[in-house]
Amino acid sequence: MPTYKAPLRDMRFLLKDVLKAEQALAELPYYVGHETHTADLADQILDEAARFASNVIQPLNMSGDAEGCTVQDGVVTTPKGFKEAFKQFAAAGWTALDGDPEYGGQGVPHVVGNAVSEMMIAANVAWSMYPGLSHGAYTALKAYGSDETKNVYLPKLLAGEWTGTMCLTEPHCGTDLGLLRTKAVDNGDGTFNISGTKIFISAGEHDFADNIVHLVLARIEGAPQGTKGISLFLVPKYLVNDDGSLGERNPVVCASLEHKMGIKANATAVLNFDGARGILVGQPNKGMQAMFVMMNGARLGTGMQGLGLGEAAYQNALAYAKDRIQMRHEPRITPAEPADPIIGYPDVRRMLLTVKAYNEGARALTYWLSLNIDIEHHHPDAAKREDAADIVALLTPVAKAFMTDNGFQGTVLAQQVFGGHGYIKEWGMEQFVRDARIGQIYEGTNGIQALDLLGRKVLGDGGKKLQKLAGMLTAFVEENEGSEELAPMLDVLGKAAQQAGTLTMVIGQKAMQNSDEANAAAVDYLRYIGHVTYAYLFALMSKAALEQIALGNDKDGFHKAKLQTAKFYYAKLFPETKALAATIKAGNEPMEVDDLAMFGFEKALVTA
Amino acid sequence: MPTYKAPLRDMRFLLKDVLKAEQALAELPYYVGHETHTADLADQILDEAARFASNVIQPLNMSGDAEGCTVQDGVVTTPKGFKEAFKQFAAAGWTALDGDPEYGGQGVPHVVGNAVSEMMIAANVAWSMYPGLSHGAYTALKAYGSDETKNVYLPKLLAGEWTGTMCLTEPHCGTDLGLLRTKAVDNGDGTFNISGTKIFISAGEHDFADNIVHLVLARIEGAPQGTKGISLFLVPKYLVNDDGSLGERNPVVCASLEHKMGIKANATAVLNFDGARGILVGQPNKGMQAMFVMMNGARLGTGMQGLGLGEAAYQNALAYAKDRIQMRHEPRITPAEPADPIIGYPDVRRMLLTVKAYNEGARALTYWLSLNIDIEHHHPDAAKREDAADIVALLTPVAKAFMTDNGFQGTVLAQQVFGGHGYIKEWGMEQFVRDARIGQIYEGTNGIQALDLLGRKVLGDGGKKLQKLAGMLTAFVEENEGSEELAPMLDVLGKAAQQAGTLTMVIGQKAMQNSDEANAAAVDYLRYIGHVTYAYLFALMSKAALEQIALGNDKDGFHKAKLQTAKFYYAKLFPETKALAATIKAGNEPMEVDDLAMFGFEKALVTA
Repeated sequence: MPTYKAPLRDMRFLLKDVLKAEQALAELPYYVGHETHTADLADQILDEAARFASNVIQPLNMSGDAEGCTVQDGVVTTPKGFKEAFKQFAAAGWTALDGDPEYGGQGVPHVVGNAVSEMMIAANVAWSMYPGLSHGAYTALKAYGSDETKNVYLPKLLAGEWTGTMCLTEPHCGTDLGLLRTKAVDNGDGTFNISGTKIFISAGEHDFADNIVHLVLARIEGAPQGTKGISLFLVPKYLVNDDGSLGERNPVVCASLEHKMGIKANATAVLNFDGARGILVGQPNKGMQAMFVMMNGARLGTGMQGLGLGEAAYQNALAYAKDRIQMRHEPRITPAEPADPIIGYPDVRRMLLTVKAYNEGARALTYWLSLNIDIEHHHPDAAKREDAADIVALLTPVAKAFMTDNGFQGTVLAQQVFGGHGYIKEWGMEQFVRDARIGQIYEGTNGIQALDLLGRKVLGDGGKKLQKLAGMLTAFVEENEGSEELAPMLDVLGKAAQQAGTLTMVIGQKAMQNSDEANAAAVDYLRYIGHVTYAYLFALMSKAALEQIALGNDKDGFHKAKLQTAKFYYAKLFPETKALAATIKAGNEPMEVDDLAMFGFEKALVTA
Repeated sequence: MPTYKAPLRDMRFLLKDVLKAEQALAELPYYVGHETHTADLADQILDEAARFASNVIQPLNMSGDAEGCTVQDGVVTTPKGFKEAFKQFAAAGWTALDGDPEYGGQGVPHVVGNAVSEMMIAANVAWSMYPGLSHGAYTALKAYGSDETKNVYLPKLLAGEWTGTMCLTEPHCGTDLGLLRTKAVDNGDGTFNISGTKIFISAGEHDFADNIVHLVLARIEGAPQGTKGISLFLVPKYLVNDDGSLGERNPVVCASLEHKMGIKANATAVLNFDGARGILVGQPNKGMQAMFVMMNGARLGTGMQGLGLGEAAYQNALAYAKDRIQMRHEPRITPAEPADPIIGYPDVRRMLLTVKAYNEGARALTYWLSLNIDIEHHHPDAAKREDAADIVALLTPVAKAFMTDNGFQGTVLAQQVFGGHGYIKEWGMEQFVRDARIGQIYEGTNGIQALDLLGRKVLGDGGKKLQKLAGMLTAFVEENEGSEELAPMLDVLGKAAQQAGTLTMVIGQKAMQNSDEANAAAVDYLRYIGHVTYAYLFALMSKAALEQIALGNDKDGFHKAKLQTAKFYYAKLFPETKALAATIKAGNEPMEVDDLAMFGFEKALVTA
């Protein structure tokens, strides 16, 4: 059975030496006021979270997958131990960790909260989604709920007494929410009656909590078609009385649970709303806006599933590669044994280092973005808030797609290290692969993330946000000119910043003629920007590692290993950009084919 | 539920117009003598096989996965309908298709036999493995069995009355069979008593047939250690009396079945041999040689799992992409609908075309190699036999690894086209992913295939075989000089042939200093050679397509689509070679790391 040990050494290195989080947070009055900005507090939280992840929820990961969730007459049973673990999680205050103290939260910075989330995901991704979805609901309600709503619901969500969901998808629409049909009828008393069917609702029904707070997209009768007529509603499983106690059961019922490839221990519900009573959240017809607040957090959270599962898979593949002896290495590694540990073979190291490098790049991106979210929300200087917001907006789709793609690849490689045993359920490696696969699909497919990056975030503002990122790269190159150790990276970074600009212009010019060109390039472009971002982050990490080595702080070899991982990343993974630059330049033309001949598609695809 | 329709159009195009199989087979007296070389016969066989695949075994694919195999007291039950389908398959003569008429076979060429196998794999890979393993056992017995053994066993295997297995792996050794411990004790009467445990035995026990013929690697008492002391034994489930009737039950027992990620309907058995009676096949201590005969066929067959599953996944993703409407394309595609079919978006086409191009490259490679196997075995001219054998030897590891890697990627992309529905079992797409994953692992992991290619097949003979392949490329370039339509491909091919040579020399020179260099480069090198091979095959197919278009034979647009697929392949997939060339050149150094710092590996990995 797999094990998981939180990579606290790397987490602390990022927070302290790379991002210098304590100093950054000390500029934010909100955290200083709550005394939650210190490295000491973060250290303590990470230690405790690591114990909870390894001792309480990781042991439930395989059994949860085997058992799955079941539903009978609308009542969902989660796997053995799941709800008890959640009670323990809530009782220890984890559900309130980065919540607002005004509503019972602990006011801990987002960057620390996400480090904790990474551990929960790595230990048991299906379980982690229950509190994860609640956190998303909390965020959206906090941003758009009325004071009355917030006062009733937020403390319950933070206390883990109630949980939350996001109800977006319908059978005929996922990507295209403008098509949604769920109806809201105004009761004239401040409430609406919601009717329709929502599918793929993660944590949509369960036995963890007294109440479930569904945030539901629906169209008010008479509202415009498309996304401009969508509103957001709060629909509780049990109606809430004026005194805060639970009232009657609202007619929102779990019709069935999906049978899925993975994350089987998370209840993915089909929910029927049959005139269920709901409250409007935010303005009528502005539901997409509110939902995006929730989804941005969910996108980074989904990206972190790639990180967490990649890390868990890596740790177990590493242990196996050290233990499994097979073939004779020349020269012998363990001459007393009949064969040598497979970790001695370069190809096995290549697989392990690939997973390791992608994990460490993903962790750096996650924490960097999370710290920027803290700055975006709380910095007193508007210009700094804007800079942070721009980086978060630009790189959230990258974090979601690049991290889940690499995370899936990482679980596949880690499984490969196990040979045939990797395919057998008992070893647990195949579960990582199945669980990781969904990250590339939900919360907006990775193709949609790529369109968001290229279309909205880059071309949409004339490259302004991208230039901020490129500016950081060139600034880093200039600041570190003359550093012998960093020189090979600086060379790559300088060229990458330049090529990213050129490629963007090439696509932008083509896209002005034909919008298909952006769609054709988007996925390759996102991967390209992902690599450029990781290259930058590995350079930052290398610089910090060199500083620690110079200070004599490398007794355990951690910083030396970081430099080697960075070198591996630049030598073996970053070169994918060569292929991507070529396929980006090839544009849409190779996909412009005769539809009838190629696909047997009887309609002419383009009518104009 | 997914459907499958055999791609007969593409199969026939390859056999008739690209490979000109009828003419090639007409040079082989064996097939001419049996009158099995004609295109007419091949046509008829393909038609019938297509019907069997779609009507009989494809409908059992999802139910087989859901039901799986069970074992009780050593008795295995396969999913509902499986054994009846096999009886029907055998009764229709499919088990005997490319078997030797001397033993009841139909003497049909290997290239036709493999086209049939492709369909069975695509329709139901788990089911196809039962006859597939039997075919492997037939091949090894035919090559190395005594006449007496052959007369008893081969007709039964070809009739599908009995089935066969390959028993290689043990708990402590898979890749490294030299470590195997299964013992053979000479009874002095021409039989041996075999004792030991074999794991991962596909189709190792089941209810399809009266008897199961296990081909088992074991070490005769007193034999040398390592692979030089391994012999091959035939161990039947039931002993066979002199009159051919079944005798007593041999003590070879299915102790358990593995719980796997996929191919759940194939019984993957742990087999305990407890003094089971066996016959030596071939010479003592020469078992590996005999096993390699069986494994070469199995490797191509495994590669074909990537092809078959890629094809099945593609067909269903294509249908979904035509049906699913989402978002508005500019200009509108289906203006009467609220949204446009997703196939209209370049990124969806990119995914579909990627899967399609890899499938068509894989099919071309499979049929080309299969025809070369026919030539290798049956051509009267020794030089032609050697040329064919060299291409088969060189490209069998490429077929196994490149086709299964691309096939897995293809199933993942096809699943991605379905969005969230791709993750739900009912749609069947996630089964393709789970079923395809094993192809990269078993029959020698793809890492091992890469070492076989680079170490044994390329560097092992000083590049002689590789030069034959490169010679074909340059010959094609010269022959077609001046062709305007082929010019862009010829340019790429010429450079690729040259760069393949250069990269091989670079690795070869480094590997002379340090054998780790070959291991470090092997996987990237195999992918590189795979792309060069597909580029060559797409050029061959393009030429044939142009000829057919010139003849006025393109009413259905098939050949135009082939040209477009080739163009897509060159523009969007082949550029991966740019990244591979870079990572190959980066060599082993990025993996030469401080083991204690990087992996916490307490032993110095290299002792010398």
